[in-house]
Amino acid sequence: MEFGYDETTTELAGRLSAFMDECVYPAEAAFEHQAAESGWSAPPLLDDLKDEARRRGLWNLFLPGDHGGAGLSNLQYAPLAEIMGRSPAIAPAATNCAAPDTGNMEVLAQFGTEWQRKEYLEPLLRGEIRSAFAMTEPDVASSDATNIATSIARDGEEYVINGRKWFITGAMNPNCKIFIVMGVTDPDAASHRRQSQILVPRDTPGLTVKRGMTVFGYNDSDHGGHAEVIFEDVRVPADHLIGEQGGGFAIAQARLGPGRIHHCMRLIGMAERAVEMMCKRALGRTTFGKPIAQQGVVQDWIAESRVKIEQLRLLVLKTAWLMDTVGNQGAHAEIQSIKIATPIAVEWILDKAIQVHGAGGVSQDFPLAALWAGARSLRFADGPDEVHKRSLAYRELKKHMSQ
Amino acid sequence: MEFGYDETTTELAGRLSAFMDECVYPAEAAFEHQAAESGWSAPPLLDDLKDEARRRGLWNLFLPGDHGGAGLSNLQYAPLAEIMGRSPAIAPAATNCAAPDTGNMEVLAQFGTEWQRKEYLEPLLRGEIRSAFAMTEPDVASSDATNIATSIARDGEEYVINGRKWFITGAMNPNCKIFIVMGVTDPDAASHRRQSQILVPRDTPGLTVKRGMTVFGYNDSDHGGHAEVIFEDVRVPADHLIGEQGGGFAIAQARLGPGRIHHCMRLIGMAERAVEMMCKRALGRTTFGKPIAQQGVVQDWIAESRVKIEQLRLLVLKTAWLMDTVGNQGAHAEIQSIKIATPIAVEWILDKAIQVHGAGGVSQDFPLAALWAGARSLRFADGPDEVHKRSLAYRELKKHMSQ
Amino acid sequence: MEFGYDETTTELAGRLSAFMDECVYPAEAAFEHQAAESGWSAPPLLDDLKDEARRRGLWNLFLPGDHGGAGLSNLQYAPLAEIMGRSPAIAPAATNCAAPDTGNMEVLAQFGTEWQRKEYLEPLLRGEIRSAFAMTEPDVASSDATNIATSIARDGEEYVINGRKWFITGAMNPNCKIFIVMGVTDPDAASHRRQSQILVPRDTPGLTVKRGMTVFGYNDSDHGGHAEVIFEDVRVPADHLIGEQGGGFAIAQARLGPGRIHHCMRLIGMAERAVEMMCKRALGRTTFGKPIAQQGVVQDWIAESRVKIEQLRLLVLKTAWLMDTVGNQGAHAEIQSIKIATPIAVEWILDKAIQVHGAGGVSQDFPLAALWAGARSLRFADGPDEVHKRSLAYRELKKHMSQ
Amino acid sequence: MEFGYDETTTELAGRLSAFMDECVYPAEAAFEHQAAESGWSAPPLLDDLKDEARRRGLWNLFLPGDHGGAGLSNLQYAPLAEIMGRSPAIAPAATNCAAPDTGNMEVLAQFGTEWQRKEYLEPLLRGEIRSAFAMTEPDVASSDATNIATSIARDGEEYVINGRKWFITGAMNPNCKIFIVMGVTDPDAASHRRQSQILVPRDTPGLTVKRGMTVFGYNDSDHGGHAEVIFEDVRVPADHLIGEQGGGFAIAQARLGPGRIHHCMRLIGMAERAVEMMCKRALGRTTFGKPIAQQGVVQDWIAESRVKIEQLRLLVLKTAWLMDTVGNQGAHAEIQSIKIATPIAVEWILDKAIQVHGAGGVSQDFPLAALWAGARSLRFADGPDEVHKRSLAYRELKKHMSQ
Repeated sequence: MEFGYDETTTELAGRLSAFMDECVYPAEAAFEHQAAESGWSAPPLLDDLKDEARRRGLWNLFLPGDHGGAGLSNLQYAPLAEIMGRSPAIAPAATNCAAPDTGNMEVLAQFGTEWQRKEYLEPLLRGEIRSAFAMTEPDVASSDATNIATSIARDGEEYVINGRKWFITGAMNPNCKIFIVMGVTDPDAASHRRQSQILVPRDTPGLTVKRGMTVFGYNDSDHGGHAEVIFEDVRVPADHLIGEQGGGFAIAQARLGPGRIHHCMRLIGMAERAVEMMCKRALGRTTFGKPIAQQGVVQDWIAESRVKIEQLRLLVLKTAWLMDTVGNQGAHAEIQSIKIATPIAVEWILDKAIQVHGAGGVSQDFPLAALWAGARSLRFADGPDEVHKRSLAYRELKKHMSQ
Repeated sequence: MEFGYDETTTELAGRLSAFMDECVYPAEAAFEHQAAESGWSAPPLLDDLKDEARRRGLWNLFLPGDHGGAGLSNLQYAPLAEIMGRSPAIAPAATNCAAPDTGNMEVLAQFGTEWQRKEYLEPLLRGEIRSAFAMTEPDVASSDATNIATSIARDGEEYVINGRKWFITGAMNPNCKIFIVMGVTDPDAASHRRQSQILVPRDTPGLTVKRGMTVFGYNDSDHGGHAEVIFEDVRVPADHLIGEQGGGFAIAQARLGPGRIHHCMRLIGMAERAVEMMCKRALGRTTFGKPIAQQGVVQDWIAESRVKIEQLRLLVLKTAWLMDTVGNQGAHAEIQSIKIATPIAVEWILDKAIQVHGAGGVSQDFPLAALWAGARSLRFADGPDEVHKRSLAYRELKKHMSQ
Repeated sequence: MEFGYDETTTELAGRLSAFMDECVYPAEAAFEHQAAESGWSAPPLLDDLKDEARRRGLWNLFLPGDHGGAGLSNLQYAPLAEIMGRSPAIAPAATNCAAPDTGNMEVLAQFGTEWQRKEYLEPLLRGEIRSAFAMTEPDVASSDATNIATSIARDGEEYVINGRKWFITGAMNPNCKIFIVMGVTDPDAASHRRQSQILVPRDTPGLTVKRGMTVFGYNDSDHGGHAEVIFEDVRVPADHLIGEQGGGFAIAQARLGPGRIHHCMRLIGMAERAVEMMCKRALGRTTFGKPIAQQGVVQDWIAESRVKIEQLRLLVLKTAWLMDTVGNQGAHAEIQSIKIATPIAVEWILDKAIQVHGAGGVSQDFPLAALWAGARSLRFADGPDEVHKRSLAYRELKKHMSQ
Repeated sequence: MEFGYDETTTELAGRLSAFMDECVYPAEAAFEHQAAESGWSAPPLLDDLKDEARRRGLWNLFLPGDHGGAGLSNLQYAPLAEIMGRSPAIAPAATNCAAPDTGNMEVLAQFGTEWQRKEYLEPLLRGEIRSAFAMTEPDVASSDATNIATSIARDGEEYVINGRKWFITGAMNPNCKIFIVMGVTDPDAASHRRQSQILVPRDTPGLTVKRGMTVFGYNDSDHGGHAEVIFEDVRVPADHLIGEQGGGFAIAQARLGPGRIHHCMRLIGMAERAVEMMCKRALGRTTFGKPIAQQGVVQDWIAESRVKIEQLRLLVLKTAWLMDTVGNQGAHAEIQSIKIATPIAVEWILDKAIQVHGAGGVSQDFPLAALWAGARSLRFADGPDEVHKRSLAYRELKKHMSQ
């Protein structure tokens, strides 16, 4: 048992932190300003940051294996995701490590055909296009994958897709060129063999990106929003299917583990940033004759935040280590645990940081409220916490069933 | 001790509920749609609803005394504010009972000169214009009124105002014609005699409504947003001062009590609506083969919500009764208590209702996230909860100091 | 709607408070000392206090109607129960208002035959004997009354009782002369018509008071402990049955409402005492150069305690008012609500008072830890909170089922 | 970074678990029975268990270095402490790893003279005698060491001790032969150089072990209770001083780190046991027609418990690793963090386990209530959580002070 980061991680973390200090934080104000003017497209300055990140060797750090990324393990990448999470609107995108592209690239790298990889993985790895993952549906509780209703029906050499998806992150961005769509190909198969995933180019007839959903008033236009997307008799060639027919659930599971690690570590990065902001504000603001920092309740928040963060980080890192050593399946309970523990704790920390900032804290003048909305929405992304707790409880109960 | 509403209240509550059912709820979707298109002005359909409310005798219900309102006591009005809170974007405005006009009208009725009442109170009572209350400042912790920095300096027959205010609710609405501005007239007086309040017409040179602040991602354009307002050498005649010079703090205190009752009762109305929505959604949505309503955790949320609401409502009603019987001063501890207790509890209830609605709950498709943002921001409106708790604790400690 | 106590209540509350100040609080130390030496019997000084209470007309205040008690309504008695709760080991017993005698007397007054009332109600009303209510069983979840397993079988002119009960409060006291036992007389009847209640004198052969159960280490010997009681072929004449055969569940329900009011108001009295102790300690104790009372976190606890107490009290009083005006059935949701809300909140307050007292707070030198144990155990007395929450949720959901 | 235990730890954990399964758990019922009869002495069966532990090489595992213990690092011992915590009344005592002897032995090993080690350390290491650490005082807030009032005055070749201590764990046990007493030798020195620690044999004239303090209702007689101890002109030879005069604070700091690791890991062991008991009970108990294990709220508790435990354990282990690699001082923030995080979380888990057990859960029939009382009292052992949070907050704030 050893709690220090390895050399590769330490070196990359240092380099990434320098990039944050020198390029990312200084660009935040301008980024926000551009975002307000660039519609659903990414703010133009992002391209410069991407060039710079590429130059500094901070590109595709997320991608394991030898598909052209950094080939880091989950445990090595996790601390980097935390650092990126300190400026979550910019840093992941600038380093080509932003969701949902990351998951989509992993899926294509692992399950895609050569053609699929050439056509879609390569431009994604180069950061030329963006992509979306279309899974969640408005009419059913998507936490139960067997509820998915979108149909992907084989018709000769094509598949025909019909259905309605929403909260499809990134899809409002016109540069989001490719959708990975999850739907039912085999309605009569066993429940986990019904779904498949298929590639649908943005300009395919019948695909309508209808509107952007808001998250506590935010449309998140800087990273392509969260779209409602309608599929009406959308036809794609059969070679657009990813992996085998009926394998959609397994592919979804495969992307889930790393995705959780990334999300949770970025949340921890946000939490660290929030603690910093909370401390600075508390030191700089005076009420009733003394700095807020001297108020016991504020001190209590700061200490609780530190204690929460230290615990969360270790749990996420251990989960990453388990994924690296015993695989997603062996890390299943931990993957659920970090999903249960992280968003709610980080939400709490952000709430306290907001409270220390007063009215400004809920406004556009600080990033805290927007970060909060992101953390809050992760309490049901990939299924509400309650579903994961129930599942974790069953696992715990099972240990004692035969006793 | 008696816990039933009196006849007047019961009758008005019935009439108001009918108005809600017949006119307000059915207009919600169109209101939101119009709001998205009407910039910072109120959605046009509001005028029809105002006419209808006036016709039904549901107009200026908030105004005590004989200034042309309903002349209800705080205890009588409180249950009506709750009902309005069920559709907080529409019902208060439709009945001319919306903040900050209500507080401004109270102030003018109680402290205004005949000229001030004729010029500003009357059109406000008729619902022709809107108004704003400019108190909060970005550069100081406004919870401590002695921090207020805006200067209101006497210069011959005029006052000259300089300062910067923000989160001035309603001020983005071009029909917000009059501002009541709080500032320092007597910097050397005792701390509670330094401030005055003064009327500043919107079109006075030097007054700039600079931008709308967002609350989480909402700009609240339907009720005139929350503006940053700059005062640069703004000159108004001396007769624009409300009450006596140095009396600003006392006037602010006077408006506070009723304002808290209104806010808290509307929050309770929101909470009731949230519980309704939570129940309906839980009954109508199925996961893993059974309605969400059968999940123990959801039941727990519903029960907790009910228990919280019942307690809050009684505390707010008792506070209203105290204000009616022993005055604001005698109800001081209770006025603080409802401010501490209500927003946080209603925020909790809204959070659970959102969770039951899944991703839709954070979006524009349900009012829950926007209501949540409103409840959250009340945790520091009029000073953060923490300040009020400290003050309440001192009061409690004082009881035991000589013992 | 009116929030003041009536004259009768105010007068009695004044008289009772004087009794507390003059007789009860001054006796607390000696009471505890005697309790440690008097085994399972009541400390001897209690008899003097009972004489004094009788003299002052503070006797049987709990008993409604004209059975020789004070004839107060629930709403009138509730504030008196709160005052008694400030010294819960002494005041209720000294005024003959202690559970479970109160419930037993109510049952005998309402359902008892003339013989039963003469034989048992009268000496109880005179405070000569104590009694117990034997309902809870170790082997089943007693929150579900249909689980009760103790058998009460008719055999000619007798009933034969077999079963095992525990947590039978007061039963270790040798002066506890009579047990009201709940058991199954009609196993094949509808679930709510299976049980009956029957009087069993302490010295009946086959009745064994086996041992005292502890509650967080306390044996509560001063009020007769909480006994495990075994019934083995215990025979009593048929006229010992209370009310009609099969009516046990209804009788149990009847006692429940007032019992909850008493428990909850006493808890509120404990909470008030805890806040007093917390304030005094915080004012008198210095760490790191300033009184604990100046620490923000302690102030936060004090304020939160005040806000919680005010809400709880109003809810319990409203429940009492409902019971008086629309009956137990009409007050059902509120009776559940106070059971859910009160113990957990008072437990929280006591925990904070303990924390302010440091190590002493958990010891015998302050009453706080013992009060805490009492509050904690009320979280499952009469069924765990979770059962009540579920039931309350169903009631709430039902309102929306047909919609 | 690596999250697996090393070989030594794994081997010892296996051996210790076997000892628990084969000897400790089976002895629990008899232990409790004997404890009720053996006054303040340890239950006799403990001696057999100690022999067995010694035979199995499970003896003095806690002691680092080469003083005759196992020589394990903190990180190696921590998982063993967790296993012992599963039966905290027996396992630590049976393996000679019980507080406060562990801390006292560490102090003597590190700071004792040869004579002190021979006279006291050796019989302690052999498990022949017990010891106490007399620090906490009733009259001052001991969390602030500068408050300590007990005087240790040099008088020729002796020191004279006067003062009053309480909550001196183990001191009621007549076999507790030696006290390490903390007091003031140099009242005029700098605040951290005022105190010294001195050895006082139990039978020294003037030392009175006055009474056992209770923790909630428990006197903890099986491990020697928590005594109030009076020192009146107690004289010991000058060679009884430990380390140098004025070094008492530094010695106290040195023992603190390992003590926290032990406490926290044992608490985690208790939590694991509680989860086991909660699961088994939930599976075995039926209400309203289905096992409690199927109730959503209970599942929520189980899942939350698991998530909390996993996080806590990692944080404690990391702290142990830091102590091993960078020393107590370098691990200071983490040592405070585990003190803040662990007792409150484990208290929560125990509370839920109790609730699942119903009334039995608070009684002597299950260990849960007693474990709860232990966890609760750790919320102010070594200073209340609030003091540690404040200190942790200052550390956090300091990072941003110059910025």
